[in-house]
Amino acid sequence: MTHSISRLLLLAVAALVGFGVADPALAQEAEAVAAPAGVTPETAYVLNTLSFFLHGALVMWMAAGFAMLESGLVRTKNTAAICLKNIALYSIAGIMYYLIGYDLMYTGVDGGYIGTFSLLYNPGDTELTLIGAMEGDADAALAAALEGGYSVMSDWFFQMVFVATAASIVSGTLAERIKVWPFLIFVVILTGILYPIQGSWTWGGGWLAEMGFSDFAGSTIVHSVGGWAALVGAIILGARRGKYNPDGSINAMPGANLPLATLGTFILWLGWFGFNGGSQLALGSAADAAWIAIVYTNTNLAAAGGVVAAMLASQIIYKKLDLTMALNGAIAGLVSITAGPDLTNHLMSIIVGAIGGVLVVIAVPLLDKLKVDDVVGAISAHLVAGVWGTLAVAIFGGGDLVTQVIGIVGVGAFMVVASGIVWGILHFTIGIRVSEEEEELGLDRTELGMEAYPEFGQGTMRI
Amino acid sequence: MTHSISRLLLLAVAALVGFGVADPALAQEAEAVAAPAGVTPETAYVLNTLSFFLHGALVMWMAAGFAMLESGLVRTKNTAAICLKNIALYSIAGIMYYLIGYDLMYTGVDGGYIGTFSLLYNPGDTELTLIGAMEGDADAALAAALEGGYSVMSDWFFQMVFVATAASIVSGTLAERIKVWPFLIFVVILTGILYPIQGSWTWGGGWLAEMGFSDFAGSTIVHSVGGWAALVGAIILGARRGKYNPDGSINAMPGANLPLATLGTFILWLGWFGFNGGSQLALGSAADAAWIAIVYTNTNLAAAGGVVAAMLASQIIYKKLDLTMALNGAIAGLVSITAGPDLTNHLMSIIVGAIGGVLVVIAVPLLDKLKVDDVVGAISAHLVAGVWGTLAVAIFGGGDLVTQVIGIVGVGAFMVVASGIVWGILHFTIGIRVSEEEEELGLDRTELGMEAYPEFGQGTMRI
Amino acid sequence: MTHSISRLLLLAVAALVGFGVADPALAQEAEAVAAPAGVTPETAYVLNTLSFFLHGALVMWMAAGFAMLESGLVRTKNTAAICLKNIALYSIAGIMYYLIGYDLMYTGVDGGYIGTFSLLYNPGDTELTLIGAMEGDADAALAAALEGGYSVMSDWFFQMVFVATAASIVSGTLAERIKVWPFLIFVVILTGILYPIQGSWTWGGGWLAEMGFSDFAGSTIVHSVGGWAALVGAIILGARRGKYNPDGSINAMPGANLPLATLGTFILWLGWFGFNGGSQLALGSAADAAWIAIVYTNTNLAAAGGVVAAMLASQIIYKKLDLTMALNGAIAGLVSITAGPDLTNHLMSIIVGAIGGVLVVIAVPLLDKLKVDDVVGAISAHLVAGVWGTLAVAIFGGGDLVTQVIGIVGVGAFMVVASGIVWGILHFTIGIRVSEEEEELGLDRTELGMEAYPEFGQGTMRI
Repeated sequence: MTHSISRLLLLAVAALVGFGVADPALAQEAEAVAAPAGVTPETAYVLNTLSFFLHGALVMWMAAGFAMLESGLVRTKNTAAICLKNIALYSIAGIMYYLIGYDLMYTGVDGGYIGTFSLLYNPGDTELTLIGAMEGDADAALAAALEGGYSVMSDWFFQMVFVATAASIVSGTLAERIKVWPFLIFVVILTGILYPIQGSWTWGGGWLAEMGFSDFAGSTIVHSVGGWAALVGAIILGARRGKYNPDGSINAMPGANLPLATLGTFILWLGWFGFNGGSQLALGSAADAAWIAIVYTNTNLAAAGGVVAAMLASQIIYKKLDLTMALNGAIAGLVSITAGPDLTNHLMSIIVGAIGGVLVVIAVPLLDKLKVDDVVGAISAHLVAGVWGTLAVAIFGGGDLVTQVIGIVGVGAFMVVASGIVWGILHFTIGIRVSEEEEELGLDRTELGMEAYPEFGQGTMRI
Repeated sequence: MTHSISRLLLLAVAALVGFGVADPALAQEAEAVAAPAGVTPETAYVLNTLSFFLHGALVMWMAAGFAMLESGLVRTKNTAAICLKNIALYSIAGIMYYLIGYDLMYTGVDGGYIGTFSLLYNPGDTELTLIGAMEGDADAALAAALEGGYSVMSDWFFQMVFVATAASIVSGTLAERIKVWPFLIFVVILTGILYPIQGSWTWGGGWLAEMGFSDFAGSTIVHSVGGWAALVGAIILGARRGKYNPDGSINAMPGANLPLATLGTFILWLGWFGFNGGSQLALGSAADAAWIAIVYTNTNLAAAGGVVAAMLASQIIYKKLDLTMALNGAIAGLVSITAGPDLTNHLMSIIVGAIGGVLVVIAVPLLDKLKVDDVVGAISAHLVAGVWGTLAVAIFGGGDLVTQVIGIVGVGAFMVVASGIVWGILHFTIGIRVSEEEEELGLDRTELGMEAYPEFGQGTMRI
Repeated sequence: MTHSISRLLLLAVAALVGFGVADPALAQEAEAVAAPAGVTPETAYVLNTLSFFLHGALVMWMAAGFAMLESGLVRTKNTAAICLKNIALYSIAGIMYYLIGYDLMYTGVDGGYIGTFSLLYNPGDTELTLIGAMEGDADAALAAALEGGYSVMSDWFFQMVFVATAASIVSGTLAERIKVWPFLIFVVILTGILYPIQGSWTWGGGWLAEMGFSDFAGSTIVHSVGGWAALVGAIILGARRGKYNPDGSINAMPGANLPLATLGTFILWLGWFGFNGGSQLALGSAADAAWIAIVYTNTNLAAAGGVVAAMLASQIIYKKLDLTMALNGAIAGLVSITAGPDLTNHLMSIIVGAIGGVLVVIAVPLLDKLKVDDVVGAISAHLVAGVWGTLAVAIFGGGDLVTQVIGIVGVGAFMVVASGIVWGILHFTIGIRVSEEEEELGLDRTELGMEAYPEFGQGTMRI
């Protein structure tokens, strides 16, 4: 269910459940009895708003998950830099989405390709009157707010954390050689403009929504978008020094702190309940609550399927278990189910996630063969699994395959071109890559003048 | 209050509060006025479901807590392996409980010893009609769903995360010498069959429920069960090489990363609000909400009591403070209050938790004297404190002591025999223990071919 | 909005929305129609209680955030000690607030300077009758409970986690040289007596509340209070050995584990949604839900502003990015918005947070010039930004500047004198500082007899 469609449904439900019983004609009869069976419009408003801000907080927590995952998978000499990038990108995403992004994505799209350029997104008069921050007709404001179904800022908050997720994906792929400030400039453009434009096509009610493209919580709109930006960035930026040998062999550059990477994955898993569960966009009826429970279940089982499948695939293909493959299997399982976590036969979600888990085990070495250096495996886990998840809606969830492909290709083409232009401009102007010597010393020393673990180890840090 | 009993109460409350006011006879009189004072059945359904999925998400987070606690308490050379075991066991628990466990535990137990063998647990026709995924009489489906009181999958989700907790306990005790795949096969049996069978006795409405055995959130049913499986496994598996000297002295094998262990404990503490709070099984009335607040308070105070008591006991007995004892004191406090977190005099919960904290300080060295090698202290914190907590219900909460003892002994005997058989079969077939050389090198290299901290330290990793 | 004022509003809202429609005279007319539009008193009670315990759980999580932040910013040799202090202080805060603190802060203050000395805080007869734990008139108990608006223990739980936050601030500043037990004795006094006394002045309805002092969630009452206690402690305790050279230069003593410090900051950020959002003290109406969404938005944007401003300030002033400054910028942004997170123009919250972020970049080196050794920057982030945030209410939120200054000075004077007396007594009796040799060896070995990272590094640990 797309965001825009479910928003219409939300209104319809509110109208039927709530305002129906508010009909005076009914109220005078025994049908008044039906009233207590339902959820009152104001209670629904509270519950819908609660779902947005609580689930939004869970998605915010994913920013910590990406920070830990990436901290664990880079080498010690680039660890402080990746921490800084992660907290900075989350901050920038929020500010840019407030300044410009939300309006570009959600207002006045109307079947088109972009929303409106307006600065700042604040509560309107209705909401200000409702909360008593503006003088006015309180009853009318309450009625108008209840028709909307939820607090506007709770919706803003929930959508904002999604933007940040897309940006988080990019930082992992490009770690260990991209300069901090140029990366953050890219984040400004991505979160303020690129993400909102393509987001408007589906969740803003644009052309893809009108075609019936189905992406419940963003396999394409969030995860592939981050993945495309990462892929284009990785190609323009080039691989880390010494990663690929001239003879075609590959030097492993193992992550410095695998328990942190494990923690990051668990954080993402927890946050994903907010990501997918909150994308029901309502909690104001029994049906909404039941849907969210189904979404939680599918989200969990798809991740579980991804882990088990990635472990089995590693064991069969490489004859060894591999922790990082299992972690990426979890993420791939989660990304895979994100486009359609509303399956009512949960076995399907295990299968969807398991296929995602196998795909990541195949895609990671494949990208290495293509000399695309993805430090944390984000392109495999977010882009490849995101494409798979979007197609899976057509296979398991009853979506239209052609429309799904159009959505994947349309969003992908836009992101490749647009992020290519932005990366290209940054590359040819201020430059995006640290010098060879800086890369050797590590970004922590050269960009930040500090060490992430000053007392540990005698290895790479001493070079 | 057991799960099955409180479920009955839930139905009763829903019937009285909700459907009572839906009686046309009442509605025609001034009693209609009473309606707005209550919670409508549909609102109650939403709130009950919300409690399950949100509290369930908090319990899911405990899987991360165990992963961090155990990562912090093993040596570096076994850290990646313990991370892998933890994410794998959580995944397996979810899949097995979906495939077989839930039905074995909750359907058709009827005072007996086991539920039904049915494959897969999906929403039924009522719920599918309610959410519009199946054609049918929507009003009838809504009415039927509201009678149930909550979404079936939210309940599944909540129960599922409990199974995972039981499995998490086992991995800590057996760390540093058990092979990954045999351990995971044990988890398959534990989460798919053993846990559900004994769970059916109480929470599924089996023979222990009929006797009145009281285990609110699972001091016995979850924590002792994990502890028994861990104890039997530890005996069959044997101690780590070099842990116990022939002269009876003990070699300390300190954990490699104590901040991670601390983080893990805080995660468990947070997750425990979901574990105990969600076990109220309802949030659809003022009484339910008030009960949950009381449960949160007791949970927090028992943990606090466990920490302070363990610190004082360490100081008095060993003349030193000990961080790992304080952490295990918190966990023991939490386990101790889990069977009866509904005490209304909160001083009692501090005492219950404090006794748990002292018990763990006594039990850890005692197990070492018995040469039972428990890497993280899980047997002390979960089994010993779990037994204590179950008895405490009879002392502080008004439960029947004999019945509590029968429950402890019955569940314990079953788990010792059943897990003994499973561990024994694994031991005599594929083998459960790595070779001496592999143990020396560490499981990370030999089972996974990787290092958790490749750049840190010059110690054990280089052997 | 102060706690006490919003509590009155809560009652008023409950009376108007809920009990108004329960008037039989109204119910018989078409106005009965209005009933389903509102939130029933019992539903409001559940939602208010839910807000307290869920948001309280998020604030509890901040204890883990402080533990990780401080673990990351101390040196390895003091890491286990700081972990122990953090879990111990959180435990002590809960117990002391139960034993004595809550009554001292909230009962019988009545415009004065202190509440009542009563031991233990348990649910009263109303609540016990409501939940069926005491025989009595259930209907009357329900009605009385609904008039209160929320479960008393949920409020206790929410207020308790705030006390713990104040104590957490102190441990970071004084790390690496304070003895464990004397520190914990200070925590006993702080959480049982000092914090509750000054808290009673505003949130308990004391003299500052009567003057109109405005501190929504505690920039002054929680963060500055912790900051004052830390400042006085730091002065009495003195700087770490070797921190300040006789020639006025400063030796950097960099934190040992910056990803953990980053994780800690993300945890604090997440927890702060509970801190500020829960301080709305109600979720029982559309207006409350809308307010909370606004509070979440401001909280997030102020933190984001703090990060970006601290990064820019570091770059401009020091020509380098600095991860720890960015992290402290986030915290300073959060502290800054805490006194007034109910701004309805969100741009203002970015500005408030950004000023906080700049202040921390200025204050940290300033304190070093004054030879006040604050290991983690807590005085800058919590006290300086707390003062700023409290003033900002008068500038951006419409509070009275003089009253805000009186509140800041009044609370500050009390805390300086009172904590000075306590620190002084501890200093001159049992002593608060470890010996020079112990400091050199590290608190982990000398106070705890263990190492936090026994296998890592060859540096400081081997001294």
